[in-house]
Amino acid sequence: MAKNIYIEDIANWEGQEVTIKGWLYNKTDKGRLQFLLVRDGTGLVQGVVFQKEVPPEVFEAAQGVTQESSLIVTGTVRADERAPGTPGGYELSIRDIEIVQLAEEYPIAPKEHGVEFLMDRRHLWLRSSRQWAILRVRAEVIRAIRDWLDGNGFLNVDTPILTPSACEDTTTLFATDYFGEPAYLTQSGQLYNEADIMSFGRVYCFGPTFRAEKSKTRRHMMEFWMVEPEMAYADLDECMRVEEEFVSYIVQTTLKNRANELKVLERDTTLLEKVVPPFPRISYDEAVEILNKEGVPIEWGDDFGAPHEVAVGDRFEKPVFVHHYPTQCKAFYMEEEPGRPEVSKSVDLLAAEGYGEIIGGGQRTASYELLERRIEEHNLPRAAYEWYLDLRKYGSVPHSGFGLGVERTIMWICGIHHIRETIPFPRLLGRMYP
Amino acid sequence: MAKNIYIEDIANWEGQEVTIKGWLYNKTDKGRLQFLLVRDGTGLVQGVVFQKEVPPEVFEAAQGVTQESSLIVTGTVRADERAPGTPGGYELSIRDIEIVQLAEEYPIAPKEHGVEFLMDRRHLWLRSSRQWAILRVRAEVIRAIRDWLDGNGFLNVDTPILTPSACEDTTTLFATDYFGEPAYLTQSGQLYNEADIMSFGRVYCFGPTFRAEKSKTRRHMMEFWMVEPEMAYADLDECMRVEEEFVSYIVQTTLKNRANELKVLERDTTLLEKVVPPFPRISYDEAVEILNKEGVPIEWGDDFGAPHEVAVGDRFEKPVFVHHYPTQCKAFYMEEEPGRPEVSKSVDLLAAEGYGEIIGGGQRTASYELLERRIEEHNLPRAAYEWYLDLRKYGSVPHSGFGLGVERTIMWICGIHHIRETIPFPRLLGRMYP
Repeated sequence: MAKNIYIEDIANWEGQEVTIKGWLYNKTDKGRLQFLLVRDGTGLVQGVVFQKEVPPEVFEAAQGVTQESSLIVTGTVRADERAPGTPGGYELSIRDIEIVQLAEEYPIAPKEHGVEFLMDRRHLWLRSSRQWAILRVRAEVIRAIRDWLDGNGFLNVDTPILTPSACEDTTTLFATDYFGEPAYLTQSGQLYNEADIMSFGRVYCFGPTFRAEKSKTRRHMMEFWMVEPEMAYADLDECMRVEEEFVSYIVQTTLKNRANELKVLERDTTLLEKVVPPFPRISYDEAVEILNKEGVPIEWGDDFGAPHEVAVGDRFEKPVFVHHYPTQCKAFYMEEEPGRPEVSKSVDLLAAEGYGEIIGGGQRTASYELLERRIEEHNLPRAAYEWYLDLRKYGSVPHSGFGLGVERTIMWICGIHHIRETIPFPRLLGRMYP
Repeated sequence: MAKNIYIEDIANWEGQEVTIKGWLYNKTDKGRLQFLLVRDGTGLVQGVVFQKEVPPEVFEAAQGVTQESSLIVTGTVRADERAPGTPGGYELSIRDIEIVQLAEEYPIAPKEHGVEFLMDRRHLWLRSSRQWAILRVRAEVIRAIRDWLDGNGFLNVDTPILTPSACEDTTTLFATDYFGEPAYLTQSGQLYNEADIMSFGRVYCFGPTFRAEKSKTRRHMMEFWMVEPEMAYADLDECMRVEEEFVSYIVQTTLKNRANELKVLERDTTLLEKVVPPFPRISYDEAVEILNKEGVPIEWGDDFGAPHEVAVGDRFEKPVFVHHYPTQCKAFYMEEEPGRPEVSKSVDLLAAEGYGEIIGGGQRTASYELLERRIEEHNLPRAAYEWYLDLRKYGSVPHSGFGLGVERTIMWICGIHHIRETIPFPRLLGRMYP
């Protein structure tokens, strides 16, 4: 009996008879020759059915099979450099076909469709080569993130999704009723991570985060995944050192393990190959000077918008650290720079090629008094932060951390324009189906 | 300068001078000798301060340091079999102490506290050895889950948390307002996984799931993590085969890599060591017979409650599969057994030692007609399931999958009584702080 194999392993089976279970991706009818492009989830391979070499019912099955029908094909693996499909270089001389289900007329033809048409059929659109490639890159990015953190002494902790209080402005929160109390969907696990590091030293949380922002840009989703490492006994310098090692590992691992998918996406990886430590570091002060010289004006004290991030990021081949943002631009928990309280020990990492910010982070304040004052200044409900203040009472330490947006990292690595393609079922303004 | 090290690596540094950054876990005052039990997130080590061998200010620091103060100690690593701490067998002859922050009186003394007292201080309770050990096991269980799936051809996909429609009864759903539309927090990613397998073959989602149940049992949380693998071209038998390999890998990997933590928890691992394939398999029919014989009565057709799960699970040393539950007990998407429509191709995995169900799963229906009929019979809103029906129109295949509850698995492996200790910040009935 022929061995069941996956297409990604086909190179190991040259000259042997194998069975592949999958779906028909495309078909070319050349009379006595039928070319069936078959996909099985791990790749694409061309199957050749030659009328002279198969029983009539097999040839008829090949003639009649429709796009996206499920089918099981058996045949001999042949090396052929011209063969289309991924991984290329092999085709299947088909001896037998079993049609599992003959598909009705498939709504997504190999022609251009509008975005709304495709988004309404996201459950089917996922089957296209391009979406397949992007989401295979996504899985690799996630695996690289976890591998690096697990291998470098960070403990995976899961911070809660349902939270009683807000890290930021409540107008961008999704609310729910928690048995009579209001609860909000988390925007960050960082505050909880700060409790976790006091037990575990170095930790990361990695889960969905939510922002109910009425934004319809190519960089916004309502539900997105974020990984947030946090480290006890680490200052701003150590934070940047960890970030550059981490990001370089993610990029290089993905380039290595997903070369085929990046080829499908026609991604020019020249700049990505250069993403290795160290990354350039400039201060916010220097960045402001650069921006004003380059005609993207900004006043000292203002936060960067997307145009500023892109202008600064694009001046460098590698991702660039911008550190020491004005205190007023950043969250209440940021550590002040000693002797210069108007700037904070914060750092953002900006990617090149127009992708802008992919990481935000920095050193958190270790001081009870400063944190208490900040909670007051920001009009935060003190009672909700009592536990967070406790962390500065019992063995406070210098500590730092950061958050990396998974979907923005995938956009950058894949070189794609819109964030909606980086997750199987995106949640956008006006879009929750399917 | 002494090298900064983590306690988990201490065995590599015998006879050398090292620096450890951590917190004071406990202290014993023996006059001229001070024993400081120091933790750094990776383990515990005993530091010895001998008055004769250190400057007076170092000895005074040792005398004055309070529980949970943050401190940096430098000294020489000595082998000593009697030394407490983890990993045992080493202690530190302290030469220097830097107190980073002298802690105020720590509220959790090494005595018994009530559960509510500890839960109110969960952000501090996490620092106790027992909680540290459980959550280090948690991280290992999660890593083992991902390693096995990534290594066995399953692609990580992230299914949405915000969903427009319910898989089950809406009374157990958390609702939110999605820009004017109602949205619900997911209870399972399975339906989306079924779309994903048609593109990727084998997939898994792994994220938080939610159940707004007014249950206050030792096995329920409102927010819990679930991993859900799903496979195209897989029947019920294949599903069970994958489950037993998967669960065995998780258990054996955790026993190997977290032996020290399981010792802290005083877990008797005798039965866990036996968790290797194959697992026993019995039908629901057989299980009902056993239950009625053993005095845990049940009528054919009724679903198992916790007492039934425990009674069946405890009859076997290994986890046991119970397959072919009555169709009426299981979800609408379950495949029927041909020729016996009153039972479904469903399977639960029940653990021994009183832990009951840890996996639920089975084969999903591949038939458009059956699925359509079931949606009607269950009074589900047809429009919300159009995309799900589509999966049976375009290349439907036999497919199976299952969901493993992460926290219940951790309870079982750790041998602990209550689920609230298996996650850093549990969400329980009446409990959302901290």
